[in-house]
Amino acid sequence: MTYTIGLDYGTNSVRGLLVDLNTGAEIATSVFNYPSGINGIITDPRDPLVARQNPKDYVDGAVFVIRQVLKEAAGSPGFNPGEVIGLGFDTTGSTPIPVDAEGTPLAFKAEFAGNIDALAVLWKDHTGHAEAAEITALAKKIRPEYLAKCGGTYSSEWFWAKILHNIRAHPEVAEHVASWVEHADWMPALFTGRTALDLIKRGICAAGHKCLFSESWGGYPDVEFLEKLDPRLVDIVATLPTTAFYAGESAGTLTAEWAKETGLREGITVSIGAFDAHLGAVGAGITPGALVKIIGTSTCDLMVAPLDKPLPDIVGLCGIVPQSVLPGYFGLEAGQSAVGDIFNWFVNTVQPAGLGHKELTEEAEKLMAGQSGLLALDWHNGNRTVLVDQRLTGSLIGLTLQTTPSEIYRAWVEATAFGARVIMERLEESGQEVTRIINCGGIAAKNPMVMQIYADVLGKPIQISGSNQTCALGSAIAASVAAGAFESFGQAIEKLTSLQEVQFVPSSKSQEVYNRLYKLYKQVHDAFGTVEGSGGSLYNVMKDLLSIKEESISE
Amino acid sequence: MTYTIGLDYGTNSVRGLLVDLNTGAEIATSVFNYPSGINGIITDPRDPLVARQNPKDYVDGAVFVIRQVLKEAAGSPGFNPGEVIGLGFDTTGSTPIPVDAEGTPLAFKAEFAGNIDALAVLWKDHTGHAEAAEITALAKKIRPEYLAKCGGTYSSEWFWAKILHNIRAHPEVAEHVASWVEHADWMPALFTGRTALDLIKRGICAAGHKCLFSESWGGYPDVEFLEKLDPRLVDIVATLPTTAFYAGESAGTLTAEWAKETGLREGITVSIGAFDAHLGAVGAGITPGALVKIIGTSTCDLMVAPLDKPLPDIVGLCGIVPQSVLPGYFGLEAGQSAVGDIFNWFVNTVQPAGLGHKELTEEAEKLMAGQSGLLALDWHNGNRTVLVDQRLTGSLIGLTLQTTPSEIYRAWVEATAFGARVIMERLEESGQEVTRIINCGGIAAKNPMVMQIYADVLGKPIQISGSNQTCALGSAIAASVAAGAFESFGQAIEKLTSLQEVQFVPSSKSQEVYNRLYKLYKQVHDAFGTVEGSGGSLYNVMKDLLSIKEESISE
Repeated sequence: MTYTIGLDYGTNSVRGLLVDLNTGAEIATSVFNYPSGINGIITDPRDPLVARQNPKDYVDGAVFVIRQVLKEAAGSPGFNPGEVIGLGFDTTGSTPIPVDAEGTPLAFKAEFAGNIDALAVLWKDHTGHAEAAEITALAKKIRPEYLAKCGGTYSSEWFWAKILHNIRAHPEVAEHVASWVEHADWMPALFTGRTALDLIKRGICAAGHKCLFSESWGGYPDVEFLEKLDPRLVDIVATLPTTAFYAGESAGTLTAEWAKETGLREGITVSIGAFDAHLGAVGAGITPGALVKIIGTSTCDLMVAPLDKPLPDIVGLCGIVPQSVLPGYFGLEAGQSAVGDIFNWFVNTVQPAGLGHKELTEEAEKLMAGQSGLLALDWHNGNRTVLVDQRLTGSLIGLTLQTTPSEIYRAWVEATAFGARVIMERLEESGQEVTRIINCGGIAAKNPMVMQIYADVLGKPIQISGSNQTCALGSAIAASVAAGAFESFGQAIEKLTSLQEVQFVPSSKSQEVYNRLYKLYKQVHDAFGTVEGSGGSLYNVMKDLLSIKEESISE
Repeated sequence: MTYTIGLDYGTNSVRGLLVDLNTGAEIATSVFNYPSGINGIITDPRDPLVARQNPKDYVDGAVFVIRQVLKEAAGSPGFNPGEVIGLGFDTTGSTPIPVDAEGTPLAFKAEFAGNIDALAVLWKDHTGHAEAAEITALAKKIRPEYLAKCGGTYSSEWFWAKILHNIRAHPEVAEHVASWVEHADWMPALFTGRTALDLIKRGICAAGHKCLFSESWGGYPDVEFLEKLDPRLVDIVATLPTTAFYAGESAGTLTAEWAKETGLREGITVSIGAFDAHLGAVGAGITPGALVKIIGTSTCDLMVAPLDKPLPDIVGLCGIVPQSVLPGYFGLEAGQSAVGDIFNWFVNTVQPAGLGHKELTEEAEKLMAGQSGLLALDWHNGNRTVLVDQRLTGSLIGLTLQTTPSEIYRAWVEATAFGARVIMERLEESGQEVTRIINCGGIAAKNPMVMQIYADVLGKPIQISGSNQTCALGSAIAASVAAGAFESFGQAIEKLTSLQEVQFVPSSKSQEVYNRLYKLYKQVHDAFGTVEGSGGSLYNVMKDLLSIKEESISE
């Protein structure tokens, strides 16, 4: 009997999963809620863009959940902790941690106690928005190839924007920073005793998707480019290696110290880390031709495409990175900026008629496609793919004096499905045939109406991941491959992942109606979202509204 | 001392007002809620387009409210019912009543007891929608002049559409109908004993705005035109006179029988009737250059323009009829299909966070112009003026995950103000300079925030009518002119109407922001609402959504 443990670091907690490699059985799970800040996020009342985390939570969480799953598994017949042969990690990102030359987070040092700018900069920290725009502008001018792989815009959520902002805004902290390490890279480095800057291995997933790393231009961005942004970035890039590794490669072995601390056996393999969505796709059983959608507050959409076939740049895709999901394949990443968040906003902020998700779903389920006469745009949090435009907003068309809350609720669901179809069609136009769709995440597991609408709108059967913990499972799979338990990811995925028996098959009648509605969605989408759209003269409307709003607030 | 009584027949009740002609004091008021149907409206569960009224409610209501105001006024020092010198009426419209040759409503006859198709056809009965389209199409082809005065489209709410529908759908009733009489015409005829078809006087307000009456083509529509629609219409038009009268002219004198029934003096003057909004404008103190807005569930906007100056047709205006408001002037009628109805829909159907109008207004009032980032279209019930298109729908643009119910509430208010500005600008473009705006109705009296937003959006000071009963006051004024108490409407208006002391003056800061938002409103308005709009390619969107909806429901 052999086992691995996957650790999945989310925004508010870390979850652990212990998997039996012989049967795929999920033996034990555990959750640790980050104690710092509010739900693990440290904010700044003076600046709503700030979102930080305490790296101590990451370490305490790992120890807690590993001990817990071992304790829980101890009740399983024949289980022996010595048979856990690997440990894997996935995290949010880009969530870089400022460290000293030994790779110790500045946050652990007495002189930075309580200094918010020495903490890990959580993915959703947007303090670097001006710096992101600056990076985009410079790349457009002198390094267009940098943008071609990340959808045309460098985001404020990403590595270099965050570092540049820290250097500019907090030089008193920045002068003590030797390097920045993505959370996904720092966890394996810590447990293998390799946090020192010359020893740490960096994962291709974070490097490729967020840090402008590509072998095609020799690794991280070049000195000339970084110098134009700020000379102090040159010192940072000097600490970064020219090679990056994929999850499933070994990051090293567990040290005696951490073995003792956790109850695991010394010397077991620790896998290279990756982002939660990417290993989530692995845990959902991704294969070529499968589109995996991880549907939560927002979505992450992933596909893989063979490395040995030429792959064009895909306009508006968030990222195309070799081996970021599976070795031997490009990882293609797209996503919707808000999905569950829109439903939650409607229920929790608009609070229509005091109805919850359950009641609204029950009523909305009775409606036929097209019956409400409504059409919505799912841009309440901008549009990540394919328009790559944060300055877009949600909209609702077709209201009458008879329109009900459940009709509006269904319209939001349909809008997110139409948004999903835009992404799928862009992938297919670029040669990535989607042969099946696997959905995972809480909404996929809990709301059959949403899944049926997705099937009807996308026109493909929808499968649902068998595991409720696809990300942690993906990390456990990466650990199993790194530990040599399987010859390939393909083998591991076949053994360890599953699908729910229920499938959502498109109804031809609804599909026909949704094809007509989708045409209208595209028309409005292009009118408000593109300069070239058939009704392109509305491109200014949402942007002007936001400008007026910002001017009004700033006065 | 002299007095008149005005009776204002609304959709659910009739209100009476007794006015002192020497002081303008409103001495007594009374309300009678129609006992028939639901809130006075008789509907048909099999057909949501049906809305009928029982003429008996009209008669019982008149007697009740006249007696009541006399009773209440009896407490006033020196009041004597014999000093009431005139009686006036305003009603909803087009609300035609099918009658026999004596002018007796069919509904009063035993053989039609309980027959819904023998009742008065209330203004909001839309059963004649196909017939209205047929009338519009035929007029476009052979009588374009008919449409030029009513905004380009004959409405299903109007006289001929309703009659044609009755003839076609209910021949068993229609064969007993000698003529149809507008409610506004039937009331004075009844009280003066002149309901017989050769005696009844018809008012220019109903005739001109709803019945295609114009002196320029010799009265009602010609026989050739009506014959093409249905030969049976020729029998109806044969009963109609070639002259129409304005409110303020005498319809006759009160009969002994009705004097006895009501407590009034026999022989007092009864004025020609008109529609509620038109006499409401009189009660609000309309003068040339004043735009009177009667703001309720929908709005009616009225202006007057001198008869002796050439007046171009105004595209999209509901109606232009000589003397329909004041003698010597054209009455110009426009309107918004939904105003209070939108706020009520949001509060009563969407029920956001359980908040009422009061709480939403309190929060919305704290917002600055433009702060919400929202822009809405006020088309939940179509657009009556200036687009004259029922197949338009309400919309909301600019939503984010932070958008609150009070922000949305304010956006609806702003949208109705923008809709009001489109009407005002169309009037001004056509040469009708708006020198002041008088608002009346419940919202005008009760919600200062709405009025301030209207002032800021329209860029003109807003005055509020002093009377809460402007329609009934207008009827009392018409009665006073008809009875000879004043030489002119101008004199009567000056003596009997008033404005509230409070005025809403545009804030230059908000006005500037709203000018920018209005530009965006017009852009979206034209894109969705016109073929020619700059983003005109969205013209199909709302119509296609409605078609898909209708097909979905009909299956």
